[in-house]
Amino acid sequence: MPAKVLINGYGSIGKRVADAVSMQDDMEVIGVTKTKPDFEARLAVEKGYKLFVAIPDKERVKLFEDAGIPVEGTILDVIEDVDIVVDGAPKKIGKENLENIYKPHKVKAILQGGEKAKDVEDNFNALWSYDRCYGKDYIRVVSCNTTGLCRSLYAINSVADIKKARVVLVRRAADPNDDKRGPVNAITPNPVTVPSHHGPDVVSVVPEFEGKILTSAVIVPTTLMHQHTLMVEVDGNFSRDDVLEAINKTPRIITVKADEGFTSTAKIIEYGRDLGRLRYDINELVVWEESVNVLENEIFLMQAVHQESIVIPENIDCIRAMLQMEEDNFKSIEKTNKAMGIQ
Amino acid sequence: MPAKVLINGYGSIGKRVADAVSMQDDMEVIGVTKTKPDFEARLAVEKGYKLFVAIPDKERVKLFEDAGIPVEGTILDVIEDVDIVVDGAPKKIGKENLENIYKPHKVKAILQGGEKAKDVEDNFNALWSYDRCYGKDYIRVVSCNTTGLCRSLYAINSVADIKKARVVLVRRAADPNDDKRGPVNAITPNPVTVPSHHGPDVVSVVPEFEGKILTSAVIVPTTLMHQHTLMVEVDGNFSRDDVLEAINKTPRIITVKADEGFTSTAKIIEYGRDLGRLRYDINELVVWEESVNVLENEIFLMQAVHQESIVIPENIDCIRAMLQMEEDNFKSIEKTNKAMGIQ
Amino acid sequence: MPAKVLINGYGSIGKRVADAVSMQDDMEVIGVTKTKPDFEARLAVEKGYKLFVAIPDKERVKLFEDAGIPVEGTILDVIEDVDIVVDGAPKKIGKENLENIYKPHKVKAILQGGEKAKDVEDNFNALWSYDRCYGKDYIRVVSCNTTGLCRSLYAINSVADIKKARVVLVRRAADPNDDKRGPVNAITPNPVTVPSHHGPDVVSVVPEFEGKILTSAVIVPTTLMHQHTLMVEVDGNFSRDDVLEAINKTPRIITVKADEGFTSTAKIIEYGRDLGRLRYDINELVVWEESVNVLENEIFLMQAVHQESIVIPENIDCIRAMLQMEEDNFKSIEKTNKAMGIQ
Amino acid sequence: MPAKVLINGYGSIGKRVADAVSMQDDMEVIGVTKTKPDFEARLAVEKGYKLFVAIPDKERVKLFEDAGIPVEGTILDVIEDVDIVVDGAPKKIGKENLENIYKPHKVKAILQGGEKAKDVEDNFNALWSYDRCYGKDYIRVVSCNTTGLCRSLYAINSVADIKKARVVLVRRAADPNDDKRGPVNAITPNPVTVPSHHGPDVVSVVPEFEGKILTSAVIVPTTLMHQHTLMVEVDGNFSRDDVLEAINKTPRIITVKADEGFTSTAKIIEYGRDLGRLRYDINELVVWEESVNVLENEIFLMQAVHQESIVIPENIDCIRAMLQMEEDNFKSIEKTNKAMGIQ
Ligand SMILES: NC(=O)c1ccc[n+]([C@@H]2O[C@H](COP(=O)([O-])OP(=O)(O)OC[C@H]3O[C@@H](n4cnc5c(N)ncnc54)[C@H](O)[C@@H]3O)[C@@H](O)[C@H]2O)c1
Ligand SMILES: NC(=O)c1ccc[n+]([C@@H]2O[C@H](COP(=O)([O-])OP(=O)(O)OC[C@H]3O[C@@H](n4cnc5c(N)ncnc54)[C@H](O)[C@@H]3O)[C@@H](O)[C@H]2O)c1
Ligand SMILES: NC(=O)c1ccc[n+]([C@@H]2O[C@H](COP(=O)([O-])OP(=O)(O)OC[C@H]3O[C@@H](n4cnc5c(N)ncnc54)[C@H](O)[C@@H]3O)[C@@H](O)[C@H]2O)c1
Ligand SMILES: NC(=O)c1ccc[n+]([C@@H]2O[C@H](COP(=O)([O-])OP(=O)(O)OC[C@H]3O[C@@H](n4cnc5c(N)ncnc54)[C@H](O)[C@@H]3O)[C@@H](O)[C@H]2O)c1
Repeated sequence: MPAKVLINGYGSIGKRVADAVSMQDDMEVIGVTKTKPDFEARLAVEKGYKLFVAIPDKERVKLFEDAGIPVEGTILDVIEDVDIVVDGAPKKIGKENLENIYKPHKVKAILQGGEKAKDVEDNFNALWSYDRCYGKDYIRVVSCNTTGLCRSLYAINSVADIKKARVVLVRRAADPNDDKRGPVNAITPNPVTVPSHHGPDVVSVVPEFEGKILTSAVIVPTTLMHQHTLMVEVDGNFSRDDVLEAINKTPRIITVKADEGFTSTAKIIEYGRDLGRLRYDINELVVWEESVNVLENEIFLMQAVHQESIVIPENIDCIRAMLQMEEDNFKSIEKTNKAMGIQ
Repeated sequence: MPAKVLINGYGSIGKRVADAVSMQDDMEVIGVTKTKPDFEARLAVEKGYKLFVAIPDKERVKLFEDAGIPVEGTILDVIEDVDIVVDGAPKKIGKENLENIYKPHKVKAILQGGEKAKDVEDNFNALWSYDRCYGKDYIRVVSCNTTGLCRSLYAINSVADIKKARVVLVRRAADPNDDKRGPVNAITPNPVTVPSHHGPDVVSVVPEFEGKILTSAVIVPTTLMHQHTLMVEVDGNFSRDDVLEAINKTPRIITVKADEGFTSTAKIIEYGRDLGRLRYDINELVVWEESVNVLENEIFLMQAVHQESIVIPENIDCIRAMLQMEEDNFKSIEKTNKAMGIQ
Repeated sequence: MPAKVLINGYGSIGKRVADAVSMQDDMEVIGVTKTKPDFEARLAVEKGYKLFVAIPDKERVKLFEDAGIPVEGTILDVIEDVDIVVDGAPKKIGKENLENIYKPHKVKAILQGGEKAKDVEDNFNALWSYDRCYGKDYIRVVSCNTTGLCRSLYAINSVADIKKARVVLVRRAADPNDDKRGPVNAITPNPVTVPSHHGPDVVSVVPEFEGKILTSAVIVPTTLMHQHTLMVEVDGNFSRDDVLEAINKTPRIITVKADEGFTSTAKIIEYGRDLGRLRYDINELVVWEESVNVLENEIFLMQAVHQESIVIPENIDCIRAMLQMEEDNFKSIEKTNKAMGIQ
Repeated sequence: MPAKVLINGYGSIGKRVADAVSMQDDMEVIGVTKTKPDFEARLAVEKGYKLFVAIPDKERVKLFEDAGIPVEGTILDVIEDVDIVVDGAPKKIGKENLENIYKPHKVKAILQGGEKAKDVEDNFNALWSYDRCYGKDYIRVVSCNTTGLCRSLYAINSVADIKKARVVLVRRAADPNDDKRGPVNAITPNPVTVPSHHGPDVVSVVPEFEGKILTSAVIVPTTLMHQHTLMVEVDGNFSRDDVLEAINKTPRIITVKADEGFTSTAKIIEYGRDLGRLRYDINELVVWEESVNVLENEIFLMQAVHQESIVIPENIDCIRAMLQMEEDNFKSIEKTNKAMGIQ
């Protein structure tokens, strides 16, 4: 019988996880929740998802009824029927949901990258910590930036010993559907301290990188993707070709060439559109081939992260691990990828 | 036998027309052309389109071969096998192609909105000038902005006599895949003269609007959609509901509510993504329901135009008209819409 | 003895009013207030302004002391020494200050455009309502957009009878120093209803325009200036030259030519920078000369509004009117302009 | 007698150099050149600069006359009267001017950062290469990014031995007055190869850094400033305070605190405006105090570069060096700073 999954918070991440779960043959969406009766709620119902109100409160339910969007009840009407909840609530709310709903109702739960590492049992990336999360109850799928770094560092780690990775993250200011957040015309150090918290976030997944990942981050006025420059000091004997091969062999990474027209994140998104990807999602980490370089035991590369979708297949694998549906992480990765059309 | 269509210039418009032609049962893509062997060219081949080089020149062909992208020859190797060419070349090049290639080879051709009204036999919009273009040889499908205006003015015209329409167009600066054009932070009157040329462009489709459409336009730093405010003085006896009904009855217009979350063009695009539209295309003109208003014989409304895709179904209907494949414009519109999933 | 002015809320508007008051010979800044000890507070002190804490609360004062920024006390320590307060607090707070501080302490006060017309005795524009505000106690200087419209409509009104003005406002999303507000990539109807509240705001200054000003507004991702297109139906006998002459004769309007390089709001701001204006402020409404046009009893034009500074000279004149320092509005305008270097 | 300086190319850099030269007591502007009769040309004349046409061609001169902007002739009418030319022409044109005009007329010339290191005798930064450029004929003042890096590396170098500096540059897409260039919504690796050419450009000034400066760069949609993250491995015995002190002691660097409101480049520019700087120029490199950090022999910091103005004082010092007006670079720096109000 397929695993029963509830998506609590059908927003940018939640709706994608719902669709990705639906594409798998070993799990199904039991319901999705929304707080407001907006067009996303209406589309959820039109897609055939059972809609529940995320906040168990009569007035809230009435809002949906008044808007003509039928709901099946509130989260409390479904929570005990599910095998696992994928939380897609905004930053900090995930932890509240964990304490107030998931734990009291003894339901397994996946939180997202907006939550803190310390509030869960462990931190998930399909390449690195699948085994550690196997059978666990409360796990966080790390953020889009961290997921991207975990993938490229996995590739690099497979050809050389990582001594110190220095990374600068240039982050998109807002998601494409967010018409409130800025800045319109500024570069914002975020955080203004260096190194930033992004290194320790990688370490929450890969403890052996403790002290080895130094990151710095800024926010810039774009919506499409994050961009990272990596400068990674390594030990070992290998060539640029070895690095490229390792990148190409690592699941969920693709390479593109500026020379073939991939001059910016805008072109990568155009590619996602042309491929016919749902919502143009690029679940793969994208590495610019020309940027890959090796100089005196240091590996250089530039990568782009489609923030809205990179963590989606990770959520699927995380479900399989937590529900002990598949022991081998690479088998889960392959299964997920195949179902979702990921390279 | 399906009509044989060549797409000359597989760019933003060209690739969409190719895909739209492929979705019809009465026409097929005989080939598409590209000038550069970039990722769009590679994808065209992967999609199964026969690729030709747009510029009939050996070195150009060699570029493609060197890039490992197989081509079937140049445009001259296919031009005489086709029933009609849809030109998708950049502004001003369409006219050159008309004079240098299509006319000499006696092949029917559709030019796009970047070309001038005077360089073709007539100007196409499926609602307004299908009959006039029936059987003609050289026709221009009018621009995205003009197409949008033609649709809403058609709706308004169906309930009231248009005396004077005043329109301000707030235009997107660049397409989403264009990483060269700005401005980054400015509002640019374009043109700086008022009224702008957009009114006369509508008149090229609807001659009876001569002197009745006064437009003004600015460019702003966004990539997603154009936005128009219409203030239309009319004669007649009707209510706001009549206008809304007319809008809803007109093909290729949809209405959205800010109240349901459609607060900006960003949300409309999110809707296109959530609907699973290919490349998130919103071929329909989008009218904000709350903006529709009637005050003392004047109709007000705000609309959004997805510049990359609004003209695509028009190109399909234009093919049918020019090749005399269907006499009734509404039948063609319906056939196109159904094949493309347009409302 | 110069009039004693307190600036309550030393933000974008407040700091400019403070500097403008300092440039006049008949008024002086008695103090300015801040809520947070940031760099603007430090600069205020370095400029020689007496700094008070806007919120009369000991902990708040301590924040300033801890930051090493000396304050003279709180607003309550100075409020009774002043002849008039210019409120520069954020939207809605001005009204609260009026009710909680200015009225109880019986001090005259000017509120800004973020407040509502109905919460004050009258609404100020130096050209239109100086006399009405003469000697009054609680007056609102209307918003940047409304001030801009009042000026161009004054010019137009001087050559022709305004029957109906249709205006579309393309508004900057955030001020240049605002790194929080978006959108990054969207056009937002604001409000989504048409006509918008901007027409009635003009009417709050010029009651005879009741029903004659129809406006619509969108927000776009730029920080520099607002832009308006005006289409004004008029009665009268006049030429384009008459309109241009009226514009040029009206104080606080300048004209620029796209042909001379003023292709966008970015170039207008560059002009303010090159002129050596403090903070590059363009207190004048800016009209594009090429946009001015007359067609069949309708006047067309495009204008740009530097939102941060256009209302500053109006605040100065409003002080003079409310404190009965000068009976003739044009004398006050001229005095203000001369002191501030405004054309 | 003051040194006679011609500014060839009165654009973003040229007009600032002209104003900076005018502020010095030991040099004067003999003339400035423009190619087009736009508002910048008109302002140059209004400021009292003698205007020459940059392109010695009668029709070009006529353009200015027709626009009513008086010129004193062409560059050829003034070139032999000057002691030195500061070239402010666009990228690549500087080199053409060097070969076609300056060398044939045997006049000393300063080129800007858009030109190549190899096309001049040496590369100038006031802290590092003043002596090397002393008395030379053809010198390039390095680019805004390189100038910024030279300054912070100078500070770091004064407390510790630089072993390897890794820098990621986040570059503004276009200058504020540029309404043509994009991207509107993308991050563009530029160049896509890592390391980028910015490291070697620093080496052109400081040869001992050969192989020690590894850089990577992207372009983002903002106009205000560039931003850099530096991660510098060093040898030596020092504390964070030593680094901060060195930064504060180095001329033409200022530090700001996010905690005091400097949360982004937008706030830094607001500071320049509030300070009353001409055109709001921040000639100093700006370092975020909170970002300065020392961890295991590695120094971290974030800095912002006001691209339009950082090189201006360098041009002044370069004039003094090339014309042998002052032997001691620090004396020249101090003199320039004092005249320009730079910290
Ligand atoms: N968007 C991204 O780029 C991205 C990438 C990776 C991780 N994340 C993380 O994913 C999480 C969700 O982010 P998002 O971007 O999808 O946010 P979002 O704002 O798009 O969606 C959040 C959804 O949660 C709902 N919600 C609000 N309160 C709720 C509650 N109390 N209970 C349940 N649902 C509630 C909202 O209605 C909305 O549908 C955050 O932790 C975020 O940090 C986001
Ligand atoms: N993009 C829009 O928003 C939009 C909307 C409506 C109409 N249009 C019009 O459609 C036309 C095409 O615009 P686009 O946005 O698709 O441009 P585009 O730049 O995306 O694509 C143009 C394509 O034409 C190819 N090309 C270049 N030279 C050519 C030649 N000599 N012969 C054939 N092909 C050549 C290019 O390689 C490219 O693939 C223009 O007239 C434009 O004004 C564009
Ligand atoms: N910025 C513009 O473009 C613009 C143009 C015209 C009118 N206005 C209007 O001017 C007013 C001020 O806007 P702004 O842009 O200067 O805002 P701002 O945010 O730049 O400045 C507001 C200032 O008020 C201070 N403040 C906060 N709470 C306060 C309180 N309780 N009492 C006193 N001061 C307080 C803040 O510390 C800040 O210094 C608003 O009504 C706004 O609508 C703004
Ligand atoms: N703008 C910056 O951020 C910046 C910073 C540092 C260095 N630079 C460098 O400074 C140089 C000038 O850049 P800018 O930004 O001032 O450019 P700009 O485009 O603002 O100005 C260039 C000026 O040169 C004039 N010009 C054009 N052709 C000319 C010719 N043949 N001879 C003389 N003048 C001519 C133009 O009319 C214009 O006034 C470039 O090398 C650039 O790389 C620019």
